[in-house]
Amino acid sequence: MSKTMPMAPPEYLIGKRAVVEKYIDQFLPDPQTYPQKLHEAIRYSVMAPGKRLRPILTVAAFESCGGSGEEVFHAAVAIECIHTYSLIHDDLPCMDDDDLRRGQPTLHRRYGEAIALLAGDALHDLAFKLMAQTGSPQAVLELAEAIGTSGMLAGQMADMDGEDRQLSLDEVTFIHDHKTGKLIRGSVRIGAILAKAPSSRVEAITVYGEKVGLAFQIIDDILDIEGETATLGKPVGSDSKNHKATYPAVIGLEKSRMVAAGLIEEAIKVIEKAVSYPSPFIQIARYIGGRQH
Amino acid sequence: MSKTMPMAPPEYLIGKRAVVEKYIDQFLPDPQTYPQKLHEAIRYSVMAPGKRLRPILTVAAFESCGGSGEEVFHAAVAIECIHTYSLIHDDLPCMDDDDLRRGQPTLHRRYGEAIALLAGDALHDLAFKLMAQTGSPQAVLELAEAIGTSGMLAGQMADMDGEDRQLSLDEVTFIHDHKTGKLIRGSVRIGAILAKAPSSRVEAITVYGEKVGLAFQIIDDILDIEGETATLGKPVGSDSKNHKATYPAVIGLEKSRMVAAGLIEEAIKVIEKAVSYPSPFIQIARYIGGRQH
Repeated sequence: MSKTMPMAPPEYLIGKRAVVEKYIDQFLPDPQTYPQKLHEAIRYSVMAPGKRLRPILTVAAFESCGGSGEEVFHAAVAIECIHTYSLIHDDLPCMDDDDLRRGQPTLHRRYGEAIALLAGDALHDLAFKLMAQTGSPQAVLELAEAIGTSGMLAGQMADMDGEDRQLSLDEVTFIHDHKTGKLIRGSVRIGAILAKAPSSRVEAITVYGEKVGLAFQIIDDILDIEGETATLGKPVGSDSKNHKATYPAVIGLEKSRMVAAGLIEEAIKVIEKAVSYPSPFIQIARYIGGRQH
Repeated sequence: MSKTMPMAPPEYLIGKRAVVEKYIDQFLPDPQTYPQKLHEAIRYSVMAPGKRLRPILTVAAFESCGGSGEEVFHAAVAIECIHTYSLIHDDLPCMDDDDLRRGQPTLHRRYGEAIALLAGDALHDLAFKLMAQTGSPQAVLELAEAIGTSGMLAGQMADMDGEDRQLSLDEVTFIHDHKTGKLIRGSVRIGAILAKAPSSRVEAITVYGEKVGLAFQIIDDILDIEGETATLGKPVGSDSKNHKATYPAVIGLEKSRMVAAGLIEEAIKVIEKAVSYPSPFIQIARYIGGRQH
C-alpha cells in the first residue's frame, strides 16, 4: 500500500488550504520590520509546506454550523501558529533533537537554538493575539485549555515519561489523545463555538474531532514505519529511534490500520447525524484515513 | 548608598503582595494532578520569592480607576505567569545560561532543560487562560501585544543583537523599553481597561507605566554593578559578564541614578493629575526608586 501514489487531497481541502495560506501570509508579522530575523524565522516555519488540516477543520466546523464572516480565519491561523510553535519546541535539542521537519532543516538547525526558542514563543503569543481578535473570550479559553497542562503539554510529558520502556495501549492512547488529539479537538470546537452552534452540535463535532484526531496520529505512527523519507518529510523510523510510543509498537501494523479505519468510519457516522452539510467533514476524515504523508 | 539596609516595601505593596500570592497559589495547577513534575516545576518558579510588582501594578490601576470584583486577580496572576515564563526561557542554556534566579537554582538547573522549556510554555499558556477568564478580549490583546515581537520579544532580540559591541543610549533605551518596559506598561493598562477607565486616564496610566518601567530597569542595571549577590539573588556583575546592554555602561553610574530618579518624579507627577487616589502608584514608584534588590 505504501508503494502507491500519495492520495491527492479532495477539492474542499485544496480550496480551503489556499484561503488559509492567504490569511497566514497576511497575519504573520512583516519580515521587513524589526526584528527581521525573528520574523523571517517565523515565516520559515509556518510557511513550510503543510496540510493545514487543523485550520481547515476550524473553517469546516464554522461553516457547517452556519457561521459567516472573516473572524474564523483569525482563529484558523491562530491554530496553525500553535501547531507550528509546538513543532519548533518539540524539535529542539533538549526535546527530540530533530534535524528535518516538513522536508526542510528544523528551525534551530537553520537559525540556531535561541531564535528557534523565541520563534516558538512568538507564535504561541501571536496565536492568542489572533484568537482574541475574534472577540470571543470563550475561543481563547478553548485554545488555552487544549494546549495547556491538561491538554497538549500533558501528552508531551507522558511521551517523555514513557521513553525507554514498553507502554500499554492505554498509555499510548493517552499520549495520542493529548499530544495530538486535544488541538484537533480544539480546532473543530472553536469553529463551532464561533458560529454560535447549540451545545448538542458542539458536542457531536467534539466527538468527531476526538476520533479523527486519534486516527490521524495512529496513521502517523503507521507512516513512520512504512513511509518513505521523501514523502513524509522527516526521517523514516525516527519515532522508534527515539523509543517513541506508537500504536504499531503495541498492537502491530495490521491492527493499527483497522483501529484507524474504524475511528474514521465512526467519526463520519457521528457527523452525518449532527450537521446538515457534513461533506467537508467527510472529505477530511477520508483524506486522513487514506493519507500517505 | 548600597551599604544601607534594603528599603522595606510600603504598606500597600505588602498587603497586596499577600493577596496576589494567595491567588497565585489558587490559580496554579495542582501539583497532585498529572503531570505532577511539570506542575511542581511551575510552582518552583512562580512561588519563588518575588516582589510581585507587575501584578500589584495591575491591581493598583484597577482600583484607582474604580474597578471592583475578582477578575482583576485573574489578570494579575496572568501577568506574573508571563513574567516567570520569560525568566525561565531567558535563563536557558541557549539564551543567558544562568545558574541562579530569585536566590535559588534556575529551573533548568533544578529540573533539566526539557522540563524548563515546557514549564515556560505552560505558564505562557496559563497566562492567556487566566486573562480570558476576565471576559475581556481587549485584555487578552493587550497582553499579547505587550509580549510579542513588537513588545518584549523585540527587546529580547535587540539585546541578543547588541551582544559583544558597545551600544548607544538610544539602543539601550529601546532594549529596556521593550524587554522590561512593555510588560510593566501592559500591567497597568490592563488594570485600567478592566476597570473600564476612560481613554484619557488609560493614557496617563500608560505614561506612568512607561516611566516606572524604564526606571525599574535602569535601577536593575545599577544594582547589578553595586549590589550584593545575597541581596539581589543572582550573581553580581552577571550582566557585564554577558556583555549586556546597561545604562551605567553607556552614561555611567551617577548619571544613571539621576535619570532613574527623574523618571520616578515624572511618573508621580503624571499620576497625581490623572487619578483621584494616586497613593498606591506613588508608593510603588518611590519603592522602585529606592529599591536595593
